Amino acid sequence: MVRGAKVHITAAAYFNELLIMPCRNMSEADTDYAVSFAIPANTKGVVQICHPFHYQIGADNFPVDIPVRNHTDSMIIFDDVLVPWDRVFLAGEWEFAMPLVYNFATLHRHTGCSYHIPILEILVGMAQAIAEYNGIDRVSHIREQITDLAIQLQTLKSLSKASCLDYEIYGGIPIPNRTITNIAKYSYANSWHNCTKLIQDIAGGLLVTAPTYRDWQNPKTRGYIEKYLGGKAGISTEDRLRMFQIIRHALSAESEVVAIHAEGSLAAQRMMILVEAMGDIQECKQRAIGLAGSKKAAADT
Amino acid sequence: MVRGAKVHITAAAYFNELLIMPCRNMSEADTDYAVSFAIPANTKGVVQICHPFHYQIGADNFPVDIPVRNHTDSMIIFDDVLVPWDRVFLAGEWEFAMPLVYNFATLHRHTGCSYHIPILEILVGMAQAIAEYNGIDRVSHIREQITDLAIQLQTLKSLSKASCLDYEIYGGIPIPNRTITNIAKYSYANSWHNCTKLIQDIAGGLLVTAPTYRDWQNPKTRGYIEKYLGGKAGISTEDRLRMFQIIRHALSAESEVVAIHAEGSLAAQRMMILVEAMGDIQECKQRAIGLAGSKKAAADT
Amino acid sequence: MVRGAKVHITAAAYFNELLIMPCRNMSEADTDYAVSFAIPANTKGVVQICHPFHYQIGADNFPVDIPVRNHTDSMIIFDDVLVPWDRVFLAGEWEFAMPLVYNFATLHRHTGCSYHIPILEILVGMAQAIAEYNGIDRVSHIREQITDLAIQLQTLKSLSKASCLDYEIYGGIPIPNRTITNIAKYSYANSWHNCTKLIQDIAGGLLVTAPTYRDWQNPKTRGYIEKYLGGKAGISTEDRLRMFQIIRHALSAESEVVAIHAEGSLAAQRMMILVEAMGDIQECKQRAIGLAGSKKAAADT
Amino acid sequence: MVRGAKVHITAAAYFNELLIMPCRNMSEADTDYAVSFAIPANTKGVVQICHPFHYQIGADNFPVDIPVRNHTDSMIIFDDVLVPWDRVFLAGEWEFAMPLVYNFATLHRHTGCSYHIPILEILVGMAQAIAEYNGIDRVSHIREQITDLAIQLQTLKSLSKASCLDYEIYGGIPIPNRTITNIAKYSYANSWHNCTKLIQDIAGGLLVTAPTYRDWQNPKTRGYIEKYLGGKAGISTEDRLRMFQIIRHALSAESEVVAIHAEGSLAAQRMMILVEAMGDIQECKQRAIGLAGSKKAAADT
Repeated sequence: MVRGAKVHITAAAYFNELLIMPCRNMSEADTDYAVSFAIPANTKGVVQICHPFHYQIGADNFPVDIPVRNHTDSMIIFDDVLVPWDRVFLAGEWEFAMPLVYNFATLHRHTGCSYHIPILEILVGMAQAIAEYNGIDRVSHIREQITDLAIQLQTLKSLSKASCLDYEIYGGIPIPNRTITNIAKYSYANSWHNCTKLIQDIAGGLLVTAPTYRDWQNPKTRGYIEKYLGGKAGISTEDRLRMFQIIRHALSAESEVVAIHAEGSLAAQRMMILVEAMGDIQECKQRAIGLAGSKKAAADT
Repeated sequence: MVRGAKVHITAAAYFNELLIMPCRNMSEADTDYAVSFAIPANTKGVVQICHPFHYQIGADNFPVDIPVRNHTDSMIIFDDVLVPWDRVFLAGEWEFAMPLVYNFATLHRHTGCSYHIPILEILVGMAQAIAEYNGIDRVSHIREQITDLAIQLQTLKSLSKASCLDYEIYGGIPIPNRTITNIAKYSYANSWHNCTKLIQDIAGGLLVTAPTYRDWQNPKTRGYIEKYLGGKAGISTEDRLRMFQIIRHALSAESEVVAIHAEGSLAAQRMMILVEAMGDIQECKQRAIGLAGSKKAAADT
Repeated sequence: MVRGAKVHITAAAYFNELLIMPCRNMSEADTDYAVSFAIPANTKGVVQICHPFHYQIGADNFPVDIPVRNHTDSMIIFDDVLVPWDRVFLAGEWEFAMPLVYNFATLHRHTGCSYHIPILEILVGMAQAIAEYNGIDRVSHIREQITDLAIQLQTLKSLSKASCLDYEIYGGIPIPNRTITNIAKYSYANSWHNCTKLIQDIAGGLLVTAPTYRDWQNPKTRGYIEKYLGGKAGISTEDRLRMFQIIRHALSAESEVVAIHAEGSLAAQRMMILVEAMGDIQECKQRAIGLAGSKKAAADT
Repeated sequence: MVRGAKVHITAAAYFNELLIMPCRNMSEADTDYAVSFAIPANTKGVVQICHPFHYQIGADNFPVDIPVRNHTDSMIIFDDVLVPWDRVFLAGEWEFAMPLVYNFATLHRHTGCSYHIPILEILVGMAQAIAEYNGIDRVSHIREQITDLAIQLQTLKSLSKASCLDYEIYGGIPIPNRTITNIAKYSYANSWHNCTKLIQDIAGGLLVTAPTYRDWQNPKTRGYIEKYLGGKAGISTEDRLRMFQIIRHALSAESEVVAIHAEGSLAAQRMMILVEAMGDIQECKQRAIGLAGSKKAAADT
């Protein structure tokens, strides 16, 4: 019989089965919370409270069909849920919480690194597209901004790949390198707001002030919009406004919060990076001590 | 008779009178565009296309009454508008475009510096409030983030004040110091996304995933929300959720675009800073040359 | 009779009198260290160990006469020094350590803000001079770097001035505003390394690889140097090399350490900023709570 | 017969043979400069002007034997040097300058990425060592700084490795991926000053103000130094001072200039990154256009 709640469970509303596990290291005092199990989502006593997501492409915006973030997250409540014993994995064994959580965090963050590659690719593409549509893609400071975005994308791709190539064996199973996975996740999460800023800077104020789809459909106003809001030669006003619309969709405050909090906060990654890298850091320290010519270090090594 | 359009005119829909002026430096080739005049907003031929603003406090959110960004911007079209001669200020005198624009930019940016002080104060307050509600206000990296926000606020306040104290006289009228005004505006605009990131980091994922007001009103779910989403002792769940709601309201992508594009882009400020500061920079250069002991410089000075 | 030591006492070797005071907050356990007094520098038992400073303008460099950082710091040892009672200010009154240190820190940091204004002015001047000598002062990314330096200089000037205009009264004496003074000090200290980088980037690799003064004096090599290392038209090779020399002098690792550690470390300023600003932050918090419509806050205020 | 000069040629003074090639893209107007050849370093007419390097471990510092940057750079003059035809590779074929330079830049930058890995490892080790010696390695903001250094090191390692694994074939020869190589080089060069700052911040002001080796050898002062400048328990004063000494050696202004200018400036890397990444950026753009639902894009693809 389980009583409790879990928050921030992305997309849980769409699944048939729920797999529950601890979300942090535990001590003996946490025995009652050291539970892990799997149950059908419609088990009696399971309640999900989902937040609405704003598809943002209602009647007043240019209709584009975007498969990004069109899902919800759940607060899942277990209101005295009966879990059959054959679906129970942990029932008080708090000492297993740590390895479970630690490995889950690595793998979860690795998914973040993976699915953010195509997201960043789209962001880079939007930036270049709107720069061209606005006729400013040859301006020096715009080129610098595109360069920064390209550096960010390629750094994430290289780190994600490196985390797989430098894999570790954990319990007989190869898993992505934990230091590099956390650095890769941190890399895009920590720079997300800056990438957002670069693209908004390139796009310009029309990102907020542009007329709506209805205004464009309206014969009384369409002519004005076509005449005064066209992009550079060869780009239709409609295409320019559509590009604003998907940028507006991609660069929401929700995306920002997801970038820094999904799969663990920035602080969580930094903590894990330091823990995982400490072995190497100590080796580096020994080398520095040797270089300094310290007698003790020389004796030690 | 005027034909043309203006974009991004904030709050124009609420005013009785429109004052029109050039928006960039002009040359002789721009004679036809060098116009300035004032007309009633309902003059025949004046059309305003306004974008909707999202008050964001509909039925599904915690109802708070926030007087921030509850306005629209207009695209104003002049479809053969007749302007009486006694309301015309410029009619082709392109050589006056530059001083008009330049001074307008300074004063306009100065308003941005002024109204962003209370906005930043609210942001700092939200950050401290939610840090306390989340029970993390004594954690070292949270304190560092609050410190960064406090530095940003105080820097803006000091720069804005300094721009008034070091005023310049332009055409017999005292105006805020142009270099400092542009630096003050740049200061908050350039750091806005980072401030946003700090607050979102402190607030946590519930900023996106928290249940709605309707769920809280719903007797079937309210109990769960009260039980599992309370803040630290002494803070009601409702107050915590309300705080999330106003943070969500304040830190929108629209606010970001407004921060960097309203009153001129980051690049516009940087350009004006360099132009205005060049006199001082050249003086500094002469001092450096003197310090280097160059013979020519010694002769020059 | 005093026994102990003080480190990092800048320029102490040149003074006739030493004024000693605590350097941190103290508790009862520190009674023995809560001493303050003034003595002649040549009192029996006072020993100063000074580090050498590298004037860096020996025979192999272009001779320029630079009055920057041509001083030493002392480690002062008090080897059983007898202090006459009429020169003792504190002798165990640990509870006065805090106000003494706190005010000293403010005033000391204020001197840092003051003397760094001309230093930054020289840096800005060097950057512009070498950009012109190298013939790259119109290149867009060089102009951006000069702009960043100008922003940094003007921000320090405005903050330093603001700290005086918003003065506080402490014990009947007006002192510079403590929050702003610490922010002003932090402002240049925190950005010093970046300013260094900008100038080194503008100056180029010759900063390290340029021939020496002796090579330039040597008739066998002078011709080559004149021919191949001239700057843009109108600038002599000698003047260009002299400019490299003073940049090299100004941007030493010693200057970096001084920028961040003299008058208190970055962390010390951040700590003091947070403490001093907390009153304002709490006021901001109350406003945010009011804005959120929290019932408790409404009742409180 | 060659007449001209080359600057910044690292370590040229120690080699027997000099290989000369163009250092930038060339056009027909540059025909006379489009030369490439190899000659013995002692060929008649070859003159090298070398700058002194400061080993910095003279009598007044703690003697440590450091094999870092103990070399010079040359300005090489070709004063009518006769090159035998069988050692000439280019003699006016300006159209080959570009591929030669471009590939040299990639490979040269790749060496920078490679040799900076052990350098960064030493820096990380110094930071951890001095943090421990100073007794502050458990302080939260010090741990954050070590984390930042560890992230920087691991990012460089991963990018350097990725540049090899994603190799390109150029003229039948596998070369490191050009985009990633330039990003890897940029990664450490662009962050070098910040790494320097972090380590200087951890080390403290003694980095500049610590007594010299001679003072430590001097029986009159050694006792004071031993007594008052010891590190945490278990670390001798000598070892602590030695560690300051190698940090001082590693973090010189020379190292900073070398980091950003050796193997090409930051701007050179950014330019090459944008050029090399543009193909991918354009692909990303097509995807963004498709996502926006633009009709033209749909037709194009």
